[in-house]
Amino acid sequence: MPAFTASLSSAQNINANDVVTFDKVWTKNGNHYDPNTGIFQAPREGLYHVSTTVMSASGKNVFVHIWQNENKTVALYPGPGYSEATANMVLHLKKGDKVTVRGGDNPDLFSSSENYCLFSAYLIA
Amino acid sequence: MPAFTASLSSAQNINANDVVTFDKVWTKNGNHYDPNTGIFQAPREGLYHVSTTVMSASGKNVFVHIWQNENKTVALYPGPGYSEATANMVLHLKKGDKVTVRGGDNPDLFSSSENYCLFSAYLIA
Amino acid sequence: MPAFTASLSSAQNINANDVVTFDKVWTKNGNHYDPNTGIFQAPREGLYHVSTTVMSASGKNVFVHIWQNENKTVALYPGPGYSEATANMVLHLKKGDKVTVRGGDNPDLFSSSENYCLFSAYLIA
Repeated sequence: MPAFTASLSSAQNINANDVVTFDKVWTKNGNHYDPNTGIFQAPREGLYHVSTTVMSASGKNVFVHIWQNENKTVALYPGPGYSEATANMVLHLKKGDKVTVRGGDNPDLFSSSENYCLFSAYLIA
Repeated sequence: MPAFTASLSSAQNINANDVVTFDKVWTKNGNHYDPNTGIFQAPREGLYHVSTTVMSASGKNVFVHIWQNENKTVALYPGPGYSEATANMVLHLKKGDKVTVRGGDNPDLFSSSENYCLFSAYLIA
Repeated sequence: MPAFTASLSSAQNINANDVVTFDKVWTKNGNHYDPNTGIFQAPREGLYHVSTTVMSASGKNVFVHIWQNENKTVALYPGPGYSEATANMVLHLKKGDKVTVRGGDNPDLFSSSENYCLFSAYLIA
């Protein structure tokens, strides 16, 4: 069953529309998430649980969306300075659909070797 | 398999015990969530993953609970001013049980067309 | 299918490496989470969804990690004073693996009978 969890092992400044490349892979079943590109690609059609957590840098804000292909879905905006937010969705993905977390206007995503920022997906049906 | 995700596409002031009507449906498998009432009704007995995310309005607080029928389960209290909180639960629902997110004392739930506030459920077993 | 959700029904001060004992069990399928020890023990090998939510006490910070056996995985640091953070992971657990939420440097975990702090796990594959 396609499934993965990855985290960000250091802070990352992103610009609008940049994909967050969650670099540290904790779990992968199959090879559908690429930590170099930050893209999860659905190996088959179905319902997927998709989740992400982001943290803002000190005194800054961060604003990201979960994207399905070239379409924004929901947003996360944790508030200033080491605040965190999490979003969970069930998404109906077609085979080959790509899911990413991408920056909006505010680019200051904090993380560290403590791994605060997360991205997961797995097939549920 | 019963599953849905909905979000709030604009800010909503709620009073104590008001159900949050997450109006924008991103995913539905079956027809068990009603965006007009905010009620998810279990079509059969089982274990369900239930998740919600809420955001507080500028300078205000918001306090909500996840309800199973007429019983409060856990609470979310994200802190003031564009803070977010998420709660995830596994709930054992009987056929016909209703799950909602309802306001507590503090009614100022922020959202916008960015869709910060979320509600999802799906059958896991 | 192994599954549980538990919450903290009162505030709990924890020291570094102390396990958070989420005392109030909302759901359990099987008997794999012990509210006296805070330990979830996998009854068989598989992929598990693991989730936790924590809240910081007034004017304080709280810092916790999800642990798999004696290894830290990801961290949560919600920010000061009644802020919340949530982390979701898919973890590949072997039979007998133990998952806990343990304190880091900052011990002030707030909860109350409103049940803000949560811990859940269930087998997904």
